[in-house]
Amino acid sequence: MSGDAPLYRRLADELAQLIQSGALRPGDRLPSVRQTQASRSCSASTVFQAYHLLEARGLIRAAERSGYFVAPATALPAARALEPQPVAVSELVFQLLGTGGQAIHAPLGSAFASPTLFPFDKLRSALTAGSRRLDPAELTQQLPGGHEGLRRQIALRYLRLGMSVTPDEIVLTDGALEGLNLSLQLLTRPGDAVLVEAPCFYAALQALERLGLRAVEVPTDPTEGADLDAMAALIARHAPAACWLMTNFQNPLGSLMPPAAKRALVELLEGHGIPLIEDDVYAELQHTGTPPLPAKAHSTRGEVLHAGSFAKTLAPGYRVGWVAAGRFAPALRRAKLSQSLSGSWPAQAAIAQYLEGGDYDRHLRALRRALASQQRALRAAVLQHFPAGTEVTAPKGGYFLWVTLPPGHDSMALQRAALLEGISLAPGPLFSASGGFAHCLRLNSGQPWTPALAAAVARLGELLRSQTA
Amino acid sequence: MSGDAPLYRRLADELAQLIQSGALRPGDRLPSVRQTQASRSCSASTVFQAYHLLEARGLIRAAERSGYFVAPATALPAARALEPQPVAVSELVFQLLGTGGQAIHAPLGSAFASPTLFPFDKLRSALTAGSRRLDPAELTQQLPGGHEGLRRQIALRYLRLGMSVTPDEIVLTDGALEGLNLSLQLLTRPGDAVLVEAPCFYAALQALERLGLRAVEVPTDPTEGADLDAMAALIARHAPAACWLMTNFQNPLGSLMPPAAKRALVELLEGHGIPLIEDDVYAELQHTGTPPLPAKAHSTRGEVLHAGSFAKTLAPGYRVGWVAAGRFAPALRRAKLSQSLSGSWPAQAAIAQYLEGGDYDRHLRALRRALASQQRALRAAVLQHFPAGTEVTAPKGGYFLWVTLPPGHDSMALQRAALLEGISLAPGPLFSASGGFAHCLRLNSGQPWTPALAAAVARLGELLRSQTA
Repeated sequence: MSGDAPLYRRLADELAQLIQSGALRPGDRLPSVRQTQASRSCSASTVFQAYHLLEARGLIRAAERSGYFVAPATALPAARALEPQPVAVSELVFQLLGTGGQAIHAPLGSAFASPTLFPFDKLRSALTAGSRRLDPAELTQQLPGGHEGLRRQIALRYLRLGMSVTPDEIVLTDGALEGLNLSLQLLTRPGDAVLVEAPCFYAALQALERLGLRAVEVPTDPTEGADLDAMAALIARHAPAACWLMTNFQNPLGSLMPPAAKRALVELLEGHGIPLIEDDVYAELQHTGTPPLPAKAHSTRGEVLHAGSFAKTLAPGYRVGWVAAGRFAPALRRAKLSQSLSGSWPAQAAIAQYLEGGDYDRHLRALRRALASQQRALRAAVLQHFPAGTEVTAPKGGYFLWVTLPPGHDSMALQRAALLEGISLAPGPLFSASGGFAHCLRLNSGQPWTPALAAAVARLGELLRSQTA
Repeated sequence: MSGDAPLYRRLADELAQLIQSGALRPGDRLPSVRQTQASRSCSASTVFQAYHLLEARGLIRAAERSGYFVAPATALPAARALEPQPVAVSELVFQLLGTGGQAIHAPLGSAFASPTLFPFDKLRSALTAGSRRLDPAELTQQLPGGHEGLRRQIALRYLRLGMSVTPDEIVLTDGALEGLNLSLQLLTRPGDAVLVEAPCFYAALQALERLGLRAVEVPTDPTEGADLDAMAALIARHAPAACWLMTNFQNPLGSLMPPAAKRALVELLEGHGIPLIEDDVYAELQHTGTPPLPAKAHSTRGEVLHAGSFAKTLAPGYRVGWVAAGRFAPALRRAKLSQSLSGSWPAQAAIAQYLEGGDYDRHLRALRRALASQQRALRAAVLQHFPAGTEVTAPKGGYFLWVTLPPGHDSMALQRAALLEGISLAPGPLFSASGGFAHCLRLNSGQPWTPALAAAVARLGELLRSQTA
């Protein structure tokens, strides 16, 4: 059945069969990597890849410092996993993100950082000044691609990263989200397979669903991002039409792909002629040091469409994002014109004005400090109040924590119970095309730390303990 | 073959065969409506419908006051027409709308009215005031559907028309265009047939093309809009999944569907369970009197998605439009969230602020007067300078004139020659899925009338005469 599959995959399939047959039961500890490496005469990396794969299938979970365990029986049959999945997560996303009219006082499930972290006063001045400079004739002349001054400012920021991106390569879109959606639509036909991460930002899954695409889930490491060996095997097997992923501070894991992995990713994809849609909206939210480079920095063939946004870093609600679309720029410009003509001129002019004013980097420094300190506080509270055995990531940027619960816990049930008390969270299945990650959840560390939030985390801990009582 | 088809269709097929066999040749005059009515013992309306159908197929053209003629041989074979067409007009649209770097001094091909007609100074004040009132917390709370105050203002305007539309039924979109695109995507699956007008707004054809839909072209009268008898026959034949059309001041014809026809349209479509996407962005640009009601006013089942916009009437470039989506409102709200999250908040807040200020109706009155006077001037110039036999519509609103050239002329060739001299126009084939209307063009009367424009029209007349010299 899997005789021609790579070794790690055969190992994973074998273990999956043991789990499905009941030989290995929920909560059972798997042999350690070292034991398996010895018993199978293979490399540690092969064992890790196999375990990652099983984790992506929802069959096992890793517990920090204590090895791998068989996941609760809520996980899906392995037969579905790793096959391209028709996606049907959208209904779940809307159900879970809607609050059913319940007022939320602890928005730990939110996708947004607190609006108090952004310079709305200065943006208002920029809005007025920017629209005063507006020559109405520009409204139609500069349609293709969007506000020229803003595209120039964005190109300058690429230049500071050492990347050469011309204003002509940049297409302004309504937030990164529209750009990502238009890119995906441009590159695929219904029925195509698309590489996504597992776990994966739910809007990517929704986009696949709306376009009738099938998700090929690439196991993704909470620290270093997508597993490239697994990706290579999946490419050989499924000939995907595109790949959509986040290399910097991935949503929901917070993983950061190392520079060498980014280079290898681009070589792998460009070598197979598979365009990469790189969703990079958190890159500038590194907690210390300089922003990481995107994978696009390693592209030689123009096949990376790099999407950025000011929505996470400067101006929520303005809906100004962009795609630096490489060789796809002319086609994407047309797709944008056909879909919604252009972005909103006042918001684009305001952000151009603000960037020219030179305040952006100072604002970013303050924002990064706030996010780092909020993350420390939230992470400490989770480790203090959640059941023993809970794992929490410690991303180097962005504002999400990924929490893996010990056996016997279910994030969907936790979400329902918490919502009744005005506490939101994002349960793991939101981030999976195959229904995995039932024992995981994403928490938002983008809110200023308050006693109310601390109390909410403590309450979540109590709710979790009552799940196993 | 067409034995069970309605009489007008059988008549049209017979005449089409005469044309294709060469019995009737390009330039030949068809029997008059009265002659045919007598010779076939049928009603005048049957003959008119047959002739409309042949016109929509590009096989014949009507010349005002002189009857119907066989069209030049550039028209397509009749076999393709009236069958659902896979659409491939997008490349042509972009080629023709692009100017190849040529500066345009006479934008007669533009889709936009002159920006000088809009109150940008007052909008700038509204932008500042609107963003001062912004509570950043609203940015995420009011996401579903968009700015609540603006949706309330739009609902009030419906109420003034005597229509009951709640703010909850309204989804704000980035211009009407995004709303139309999202509506179409919501209602169809690739391969579906969709009813559109012939001639048809090219963005509708582009939307069909991007979604892999097939166009079923409904013959559309330059004065009264879509032919409902033809539509009924097409519905029976092709079971379309949706209908997208413009009932008020259609682009490009300027046609205005009479109230009884709108009611019949909705009864026909709702009777077959076919949702209507009503693109109604020109409704408030009637030249005199009160704005016409949309077809949606006659809907009893909530199956009309009515798209409006401030882009044509108040604030070009702000990209604020909406869809009052009837029973599809919850689904459309989700589609909008998935596609681009929300519209741009500053622009939405500014327009809400402006509407609350009460200046909108005064502005509209001035705009309507300007458009009426500009239309008179452009129309007179065309009739003066274009070759004898040229027909020009006289729409009661909007800012487009539809020009039908006498035999021997070709609007694509005219467009190429005019562009070299800085004059743009929109040739007929832009508006057809089946390549028809080669002898037609759309001119923009949204520009203030100037001697330069008058000279441009005179020059177009010279270029046309050189086509037949």
